[in-house]
Amino acid sequence: MVQIKLTDNFWNQTLKLIKNEMIPFQWQVLNDNIEIEIQKERDDELIPSEKSNAIENLKIAAGLSEKEHYGWWFQDSDVYKWIEGVAHVLRHEPDPSLEELVDHVVDLIQLAQEDDGYLNTYYQIKAPHLKFKRLMESHEHYCAGHLIEAAVAYFEVTGKDKLLKVACKFADCLEENFGPEEGKIHGADGHQEIELALVKLYLCTNEAKYLQLSHYFLTVRGQDPNFYQKQLDDPAAKVNLKYLQAYQPPVEQTTAEGHAVRLVYMCTGMAEVAYYTGNEKLLEACRNIWNNMVQKRMYVTGGIGSTVHGEAFTGDYDLPNDTMYCETCAAIGLINFANSMLKNDPDSQYADVMERALYNNVMSGMALDGKHYFYVNPLESHPETNEANPGKSHVKSTRPPWFGCACCPPNLARTISQIENYIYTQSKQGIYTHLYINHTWEGSNMILQQEGNGGNITIKVKTKTQEPILIPLYFRIPSWTSGYRLSVNEEEVKFPEVQKGYIKLEKKWQGLVTIGLHFEMPVLQVTSHPLIRGNIGKVAIQRGPFIYCLEEEDNGPNLHLIYLTPNTKFEVKLNTELGEVPVLEGMGERLVISKAWNQQLYHYHADPVFERVKIVMVPYYAWANRELGEMRVWVNMK
Amino acid sequence: MVQIKLTDNFWNQTLKLIKNEMIPFQWQVLNDNIEIEIQKERDDELIPSEKSNAIENLKIAAGLSEKEHYGWWFQDSDVYKWIEGVAHVLRHEPDPSLEELVDHVVDLIQLAQEDDGYLNTYYQIKAPHLKFKRLMESHEHYCAGHLIEAAVAYFEVTGKDKLLKVACKFADCLEENFGPEEGKIHGADGHQEIELALVKLYLCTNEAKYLQLSHYFLTVRGQDPNFYQKQLDDPAAKVNLKYLQAYQPPVEQTTAEGHAVRLVYMCTGMAEVAYYTGNEKLLEACRNIWNNMVQKRMYVTGGIGSTVHGEAFTGDYDLPNDTMYCETCAAIGLINFANSMLKNDPDSQYADVMERALYNNVMSGMALDGKHYFYVNPLESHPETNEANPGKSHVKSTRPPWFGCACCPPNLARTISQIENYIYTQSKQGIYTHLYINHTWEGSNMILQQEGNGGNITIKVKTKTQEPILIPLYFRIPSWTSGYRLSVNEEEVKFPEVQKGYIKLEKKWQGLVTIGLHFEMPVLQVTSHPLIRGNIGKVAIQRGPFIYCLEEEDNGPNLHLIYLTPNTKFEVKLNTELGEVPVLEGMGERLVISKAWNQQLYHYHADPVFERVKIVMVPYYAWANRELGEMRVWVNMK
Repeated sequence: MVQIKLTDNFWNQTLKLIKNEMIPFQWQVLNDNIEIEIQKERDDELIPSEKSNAIENLKIAAGLSEKEHYGWWFQDSDVYKWIEGVAHVLRHEPDPSLEELVDHVVDLIQLAQEDDGYLNTYYQIKAPHLKFKRLMESHEHYCAGHLIEAAVAYFEVTGKDKLLKVACKFADCLEENFGPEEGKIHGADGHQEIELALVKLYLCTNEAKYLQLSHYFLTVRGQDPNFYQKQLDDPAAKVNLKYLQAYQPPVEQTTAEGHAVRLVYMCTGMAEVAYYTGNEKLLEACRNIWNNMVQKRMYVTGGIGSTVHGEAFTGDYDLPNDTMYCETCAAIGLINFANSMLKNDPDSQYADVMERALYNNVMSGMALDGKHYFYVNPLESHPETNEANPGKSHVKSTRPPWFGCACCPPNLARTISQIENYIYTQSKQGIYTHLYINHTWEGSNMILQQEGNGGNITIKVKTKTQEPILIPLYFRIPSWTSGYRLSVNEEEVKFPEVQKGYIKLEKKWQGLVTIGLHFEMPVLQVTSHPLIRGNIGKVAIQRGPFIYCLEEEDNGPNLHLIYLTPNTKFEVKLNTELGEVPVLEGMGERLVISKAWNQQLYHYHADPVFERVKIVMVPYYAWANRELGEMRVWVNMK
Repeated sequence: MVQIKLTDNFWNQTLKLIKNEMIPFQWQVLNDNIEIEIQKERDDELIPSEKSNAIENLKIAAGLSEKEHYGWWFQDSDVYKWIEGVAHVLRHEPDPSLEELVDHVVDLIQLAQEDDGYLNTYYQIKAPHLKFKRLMESHEHYCAGHLIEAAVAYFEVTGKDKLLKVACKFADCLEENFGPEEGKIHGADGHQEIELALVKLYLCTNEAKYLQLSHYFLTVRGQDPNFYQKQLDDPAAKVNLKYLQAYQPPVEQTTAEGHAVRLVYMCTGMAEVAYYTGNEKLLEACRNIWNNMVQKRMYVTGGIGSTVHGEAFTGDYDLPNDTMYCETCAAIGLINFANSMLKNDPDSQYADVMERALYNNVMSGMALDGKHYFYVNPLESHPETNEANPGKSHVKSTRPPWFGCACCPPNLARTISQIENYIYTQSKQGIYTHLYINHTWEGSNMILQQEGNGGNITIKVKTKTQEPILIPLYFRIPSWTSGYRLSVNEEEVKFPEVQKGYIKLEKKWQGLVTIGLHFEMPVLQVTSHPLIRGNIGKVAIQRGPFIYCLEEEDNGPNLHLIYLTPNTKFEVKLNTELGEVPVLEGMGERLVISKAWNQQLYHYHADPVFERVKIVMVPYYAWANRELGEMRVWVNMK
């Protein structure tokens, strides 16, 4: 069993925040024990935002409460994701009282589960006659998936199998009801998630049937274009098959369409099933969708989903910066998809995107206090307009404490708390290091210890056996570096072998070997593909994996008037109120609003006047942690 | 009685189109006698777009048909606006068969009217118990207003008073039901229009009660914030008082809020009532709203309404070019508001905006064939994205033949067919010429004959009496001119008196006097207020009152890659396939999509490469009359 112990300042601070602030806060919210204003994630009367009620719903289903179910049909998943988060937290550091809390919830979940394994408080309490009969929107499998992920994680960390048994029982219930056999339902949940979860259950239990069921869900999807329509009572109801990625079987899909979270959850499942079944066609479909997504439909922050309508992709190169969606959950799904692709094909392009999404769109999803969250992560925010323009009702200017649809906050908890799972993949070919996060990795016969900061990294390879160990080690060359140096035991390696973006070190490891890696980490001016209409004449600023942004707090209002110039040089300033990651300071220009504009909206003879100004840029993920104000990623370039 | 005879090429061609194509086409549509695809103006299942049924609805209400009512509760207004259009057409040239057609419809309308004067086919047929009980959205007064406008126009042109009697009877019914007296309803229609129409009825009938009723509707609005809520059965229903301009009494409003068409229709009524009652406070409110609108919330095309959500204004300087609304009806309302302000205060700023909206957003509402119309008039159109991005479902790439909500097409017919009513205002102070459109104006004792083209205008003043006539003549100095010259009887007037943007010529007119006006008409680079975020680094091109745009047909795809440079000089090319108004040709640059962008969305080291290209710009109003393609008003400036 591999053990990873993080020694990274940035991540250890974040993990402490998750344990000390986020997890307790979310527990209070799930129990409705805290006074907060739950916000609708967009202006839509149908969004239930009075309270969470998630624990209460379980109590009702368990027969321990007489109250009313409240919330979405997927409200249970908030609890499951929270449990998964706690499990990962406990992996880093035991905490008996937290574990006791989970055990208590597990008892509740077990009590709520029906005899046949079914478990979904909404359908159990409010619409038992519709179980598995509204798959388009029911999220029953989606909830099952999160239950499974929580159960597997909790079992792996604590060895306790009560929740795992509940999960298996529900998975067996699904197998009972779904499959190619006559009499079973030939369809899949509208919201993917069960597919990737069943692979985890397979790996945990070694039961092949779970892998097969996952494969079945990926196969049956999009087979019968009328499946969802037929399930509805209402023949006039409209089914948007693109939204559901059910317009054709996943294996035939070549572009990123529909609801962004659903797509990347599906693709993660596809890549996992492809890996464990050796299904080349499924992997090829993953590659096609991946290529379309990251080459034509992804924001520079790793955000995906260009529109609030259906929280969805739109078309190639359509990436508006102020009306986009870029849901936190979608970026989380994207890093999982990337991670699963890395298993199949250790190509640094996947790790580059994983890192981009993680350090920007994912981390932007939480405030520095751990108790406020973004659902939507804009690349441009103008608070006055977010308020005044109803087309931007989904673009929040600050992070609310919770949402009517609360998918993102516990998703952050369970994802970031297992950050170590994104550092490596290990395969027959060797051990691949994707992310440079200080830690110690301990396998059965080897220890890898990574230390460093900025672009200077030292990796100590220690063997635990007498025998030398022959295994290639691969180290990713990040796309953002402008040059690198490699040394082994302080001796420079001039022309290391490079495979698909990774430095390959193949040798017989014995005793202690010290590997030195130096990656140049300049402040980069990122330009975007000329077909992205809104970014013409603008640049984004990046250093290492971090995208930077302008905030009103540092630069005053009207950020759209600020220009970088070819002479702008940024100084890197460490240790600011925003934490570990440096801020950038430089000189630029600002378009002046001259008197010519008094009471005039259009002008025939106005020459632009500029003044020199200091420009401060902060890491994108850390925006909106100070005063309410504007923010902007893409900055005018003179 | 003043007679105006147009002699203008541009407008006479347009009027011919309206008479020969638009009016007959719309008649076919209103009778459902033509195979066309009626489009929803935006993606909304509730929009009825199967057919018009407008004439049929009248037949049903008249007891001449047993069919079902179809369409909006304001479907009748399509017919009224069409009649008004015909009336104006008949003013230019009699047409007995067309007049007979109208007489037939008038009979139908009279038959449909109830004994108490009430007239609205939707409520009569489908919901008689709700008459005047759903004023928030019922449009009953709105339809009454259009009935009145049609009746007044038809009476003035033909002398036939049957429709006028119907209109008066309905107006009397309103007076019976609405007013400050106890027992009457103390509220106004959610959609303004009756206010301005009642002033026309007052002027036509000389009945002061109609002016008073108009004033009452403007006074009661916004008095009781719960009025609309109380009218609804549903306590949970939400009333958006800003949308309805009912958040406070109109006289207290200072900004342009809510549904754009409603606002400018209301303001037109306010300015008219202010003029005829001498109400200074009402006029002051008009000025405040006007200033906010044209100084902070108006597009360079004279378009208003920044969002599809509520077809509404948003906030100051929030003028996105690709998601805006800029409804044709709103621009029509704006020119009427401007025209009514000119009555009160002959200041050229009103005429400048009137001209801007007329020659750009209004005229863009119709195709060159007279049979296709825009509801929404974008400043930037990218057909692929209009399709792929549901947030742009209202942005059509080409003009459809008709809409589920068909307010705009007949509104264009009735507005453009009375273009002569926007040329002048006449008051005690003198005769003001606002628009330079060739024509002959004949009053009881004077003839003004205007001839010219481009910026060269000759005005012949002829007196019909022996006595000299002392009346000041005022001629607007257009905001777009870079210089002007004035001559009287070929003698240059060096320093003419100028009042509020008008050249004042005060003399005793006798016999024939020839006035020469020369306005320089350069190709102008328009810049927008720096607070309009989307226009930074861009210019719009204008010549005379016409805004120009790039179209894909002339410039290839990806118009956002085109740059004008400080050296770009435009040549004016006459007589093209797009008609009277010249196109512009010049040289500019185009950002090249280099090979560096193969399979890459973001780049750390891509230097922009430009190539020199020919640039063609066409008048904005004439866009989308050729092949489907992109369009763009605001062009990058190097």
